Amino acid sequence: MTLHIDGFVFDLDGTVYLGDTALPGAVECIATLRRRNKRTVFVSNKPLESRQAYAAKLTRLGIPTDPDDVITSALVLGRYLARTAPQLHLYVIGEPYLVAELRSHGLTVVDELLDQDPREVIQPRGIDAVVVAFDRTLDYRKLNTAYQALMRGARFFATNADKACPMPGGAIPDAGATIAALEHITGRKVEVVAGKPSTLIMEIALERLGLPAARCMMIGDRLETDIAMGKQAGMATAVVLTGVTKREDVARLASPPDLVLENLGELPGRVE
Amino acid sequence: MTLHIDGFVFDLDGTVYLGDTALPGAVECIATLRRRNKRTVFVSNKPLESRQAYAAKLTRLGIPTDPDDVITSALVLGRYLARTAPQLHLYVIGEPYLVAELRSHGLTVVDELLDQDPREVIQPRGIDAVVVAFDRTLDYRKLNTAYQALMRGARFFATNADKACPMPGGAIPDAGATIAALEHITGRKVEVVAGKPSTLIMEIALERLGLPAARCMMIGDRLETDIAMGKQAGMATAVVLTGVTKREDVARLASPPDLVLENLGELPGRVE
Repeated sequence: MTLHIDGFVFDLDGTVYLGDTALPGAVECIATLRRRNKRTVFVSNKPLESRQAYAAKLTRLGIPTDPDDVITSALVLGRYLARTAPQLHLYVIGEPYLVAELRSHGLTVVDELLDQDPREVIQPRGIDAVVVAFDRTLDYRKLNTAYQALMRGARFFATNADKACPMPGGAIPDAGATIAALEHITGRKVEVVAGKPSTLIMEIALERLGLPAARCMMIGDRLETDIAMGKQAGMATAVVLTGVTKREDVARLASPPDLVLENLGELPGRVE
Repeated sequence: MTLHIDGFVFDLDGTVYLGDTALPGAVECIATLRRRNKRTVFVSNKPLESRQAYAAKLTRLGIPTDPDDVITSALVLGRYLARTAPQLHLYVIGEPYLVAELRSHGLTVVDELLDQDPREVIQPRGIDAVVVAFDRTLDYRKLNTAYQALMRGARFFATNADKACPMPGGAIPDAGATIAALEHITGRKVEVVAGKPSTLIMEIALERLGLPAARCMMIGDRLETDIAMGKQAGMATAVVLTGVTKREDVARLASPPDLVLENLGELPGRVE
């Protein structure tokens, strides 16, 4: 049986590319699907770079892409907060792109409270909510500010909850580290995680595709995020073995993905 | 029945003093016990200041104290590592006093790997073990260095695991935040926590008192650390209500402390 699919949602790292190199079959796969008039969008949990930057990278690798077809966890959180709580004053543990993205949705981001000694009880003046993201400039001042705000009832959001971000040579601590620290010491739980495996990011991907979930497929390299999320959204799913998942990992699943692909080159032959 | 006790182990913050002020009855209590030729020692989980500094503070507040009668989590960890694993090269997430304390036990502390970009996969050259402590200069470089070392099998120790450190006006994030972050993202568990409620710190306190546990009492303001630890060590216990514990908290306990004291002023009348 060949699956009939009209819209494809691709994970990026480990699925389409690794570092600065397109993975085997990726360029041809996406070109073939587009020639068949299929729709393609790309999702990433990384709140470090703009959609323009991701689109430019894909285009450079041979996959011409419109920035509107790239969906980051930062975009998803920005849209979510603009829709549900636009009045909140946000304290962001994150990098400059995330702040710019949130402000582009009309949201208010509070500056660092640099007049206060980070070794004291920082008074979280004017902070209604804490946003935690991947932040390679995390420091004690930020942790203390978020802690004080959360202990005084601030709301608690995150772009993503990944433990570590894959990098050349390994991985480095991601937003999951900061979330775990703050949850442990405050006894609070993060209310909403915008990125994978949240259904929020799938909703926005499907909205961009303009298709019902049943006609779409999620393709990624991670079973616990990409595949779990696609299934939860009611989409078909395909795992590619070019990233963190091995064939024996798939064999263990009670509810396996629809397709298991050595690489993206196999995808066009398995769908119509 | 009056308890016969020869050695007293006092918690400091919330028991003997709060900030820079002796708590009611503390000065008279300790003077009275010493006039009866009782032995007194003081324990603190805070790895921020030297035993000399704590002794000087107690002396200034009217409780003349020898630095050797002050036992910090840093001292306990230093002695433990010097005894069990003196050859380890330690990477310390902590402040300068802790590094000095560890080095004073003949241990090797590795310098920060400042030649490496903290946004990359830091190569944890020459690190055999990670030591986590209260550190108000925590940053992403330190988190990343510890993460890489732990992922490559480094041993994992902590001075203390407190969630937050009480301060004028509230509390600030303590070592518990960093431990939670690293445990979550590495899947590792800290092997040894030197400070309360570990029995290690009680062993060293009893060694200093030179008395068997059955003739000693632990006095503190926290049920889950001070009192739990005293009981586990086989000591008598007394909770003082000058810190974080309220009388109704004690009423809930299946195994309550031997004494519940409004303040230390009541202690000499309740023991002999």
